[in-house]
Amino acid sequence: MPKPEIVFVTGNANKLREVSMILGGDASPFTLVNEPLDLEELQGADLQEIALAKLQQAVHALGPGRPVFVEDTALSFDEFNGLPGAYIKWFIKSMGLAKVVKMLDSFENKGAYAITTIAYADSKGQLHVFQGKTHGTIVDSRGHTNFGWDSIFQPDESQNNETYAEMAKEDKNKISQRGRAFAQLKEYLYNTGI
Amino acid sequence: MPKPEIVFVTGNANKLREVSMILGGDASPFTLVNEPLDLEELQGADLQEIALAKLQQAVHALGPGRPVFVEDTALSFDEFNGLPGAYIKWFIKSMGLAKVVKMLDSFENKGAYAITTIAYADSKGQLHVFQGKTHGTIVDSRGHTNFGWDSIFQPDESQNNETYAEMAKEDKNKISQRGRAFAQLKEYLYNTGI
Repeated sequence: MPKPEIVFVTGNANKLREVSMILGGDASPFTLVNEPLDLEELQGADLQEIALAKLQQAVHALGPGRPVFVEDTALSFDEFNGLPGAYIKWFIKSMGLAKVVKMLDSFENKGAYAITTIAYADSKGQLHVFQGKTHGTIVDSRGHTNFGWDSIFQPDESQNNETYAEMAKEDKNKISQRGRAFAQLKEYLYNTGI
Repeated sequence: MPKPEIVFVTGNANKLREVSMILGGDASPFTLVNEPLDLEELQGADLQEIALAKLQQAVHALGPGRPVFVEDTALSFDEFNGLPGAYIKWFIKSMGLAKVVKMLDSFENKGAYAITTIAYADSKGQLHVFQGKTHGTIVDSRGHTNFGWDSIFQPDESQNNETYAEMAKEDKNKISQRGRAFAQLKEYLYNTGI
């Protein structure tokens, strides 16, 4: 019998690879299928609402009975009281990493929470939200710069003061907000089915 | 015959007062009616798309045949390549004015464009977009602080280096992005009807 499919809506190849790895790769009891749907994202302070609104569009686009999840990752500076948050992707895209770091120059506290929110609709259409958080510090870019803001985020739990971009993938996934959020989804899927 | 009604969707009493004044107040050939609908706002870099998406929800909520407009005002720092843009309201709300100014401390160029985008659906359901822009400088807060970021924006055209918050309302409306956008809507409405 072929493995059941679960859809991950993302247009980001790096996220797809990372999530596939976290969910167990080839050893997992289901097949991860990518659908790069173009989903609208709401403004708003509440990360769960943003993810659920995206999910509802995905469910609508894919039709009933297909298990599907979306994820959204926010970067919330301690001094900015939650912001840039979900908007961080627009800041990175518009300003580049160096200027995002520079925004914090005048603030002594460079702390930030990275937060991944997953919204998942199971095969019966029931909705579930999982969230993972990791605290760290915003630093000058170190390491590869091909995955969002990984090179300017140094997690507090990093053993050698490395940024995400400098860490081995497996080490990053153990402590990252995305790793933590998807570990919850994985546990749910492995225990409950899809 | 009673004047025809035109709906302005806003929950902001200051905006309502300002727009009513710009559109001609009691002397105008139509009555401005406020509907504080709760419209969702999309993320995205394109201000026209954000305004049109809001407008379409308003048209849907009010039903056909009712002329309605929405407005969205962005503040785009020169150094931030368009941002915070439409997200400025979230930054003001979360961080407060002083920290928004502080974000620019390390940048020599404190220039910014204020941009008001109006999306208008006429009584036949046709859509129109009007946009007004004003360039200025982000400064330490001066003047009243009860209307968004008016106290930290000093328009280049200000005669006495005043912020919006320090200017007389009539003087502000002559050079402000909102004044310019609504002057276009006013001209359209006065010439074409609603």
